[in-house]
Amino acid sequence: MREILIQQLTREAFAPFGDVIEIEGASSFPINHGMCVRYHDLAKVETTGDNARTLISLLHGKPYELPLKLEMVERHPFGSQAFVPLSNNPFLVVAAHDYPDGPGDPVAFLAQPAQGVNIHRDVWHGILTPLKGQSDFVVIDRGGDGVNLQEHFYPEAFLIR
Amino acid sequence: MREILIQQLTREAFAPFGDVIEIEGASSFPINHGMCVRYHDLAKVETTGDNARTLISLLHGKPYELPLKLEMVERHPFGSQAFVPLSNNPFLVVAAHDYPDGPGDPVAFLAQPAQGVNIHRDVWHGILTPLKGQSDFVVIDRGGDGVNLQEHFYPEAFLIR
Repeated sequence: MREILIQQLTREAFAPFGDVIEIEGASSFPINHGMCVRYHDLAKVETTGDNARTLISLLHGKPYELPLKLEMVERHPFGSQAFVPLSNNPFLVVAAHDYPDGPGDPVAFLAQPAQGVNIHRDVWHGILTPLKGQSDFVVIDRGGDGVNLQEHFYPEAFLIR
Repeated sequence: MREILIQQLTREAFAPFGDVIEIEGASSFPINHGMCVRYHDLAKVETTGDNARTLISLLHGKPYELPLKLEMVERHPFGSQAFVPLSNNPFLVVAAHDYPDGPGDPVAFLAQPAQGVNIHRDVWHGILTPLKGQSDFVVIDRGGDGVNLQEHFYPEAFLIR
């Protein structure tokens, strides 16, 4: 089984796939008479297609164990999908470049509890993968008409460690 | 000074002003082969006006002390504004009905750490008011052209306790 080594999640490394939603390194300005700092506009939210709208939902996920066998990635042709962790656990973010014959080899990132991600529209990615414990997330994604899911099953699984 | 007593934040009590974003009492369905539960579509996200788009930002706020003197409410004519707490602190949510001559007497709710709120477009509300400690929030609101802020200063302040 081919192995994928998990790398640190940084804005630069994740840029081909989406945005990292974190305070660290974000541009900001003060609001509310200096009582609050706003780290502004950290993700490109995309909602396209018929009757498209932005959804806010919550997720409660069971944890996965590493090493993790990965057989499938998916993508959403009509919208981006942001995950911001509400629990104090890391999670795994898998993404893959798109090629004419489908997704390339996956890339795996370790998101720390203070890091969210926004996966851009039509970018291949793994399902939500909490680590270490049951974890809640707020998810900002797209509602509307049409089939907003494509799945790709790799002919051979990868082992992420 | 007129006093406002803080009430518990529930979906029913907050319904005239917006949505409560919480797992408790939300409708849900399983995803990812049963590894995750999705509490789906918990807030009405509104983005109107020229070049409107949804923003995801983070806020880092200093705490306020109770009782709190309230002199002002504001509203956003072009969009809703959702706040989901990332820290384990409660926060105060102030809202007011709209009347022909401006906002009525404010209403105050205590949001627990597992509760977010989405304030609907054009609803009078207080500024973000963390309690007990420095607190982070994810905010989902509207970017675009035009002046998306109206403020109202009450002729006499209220004391929220």
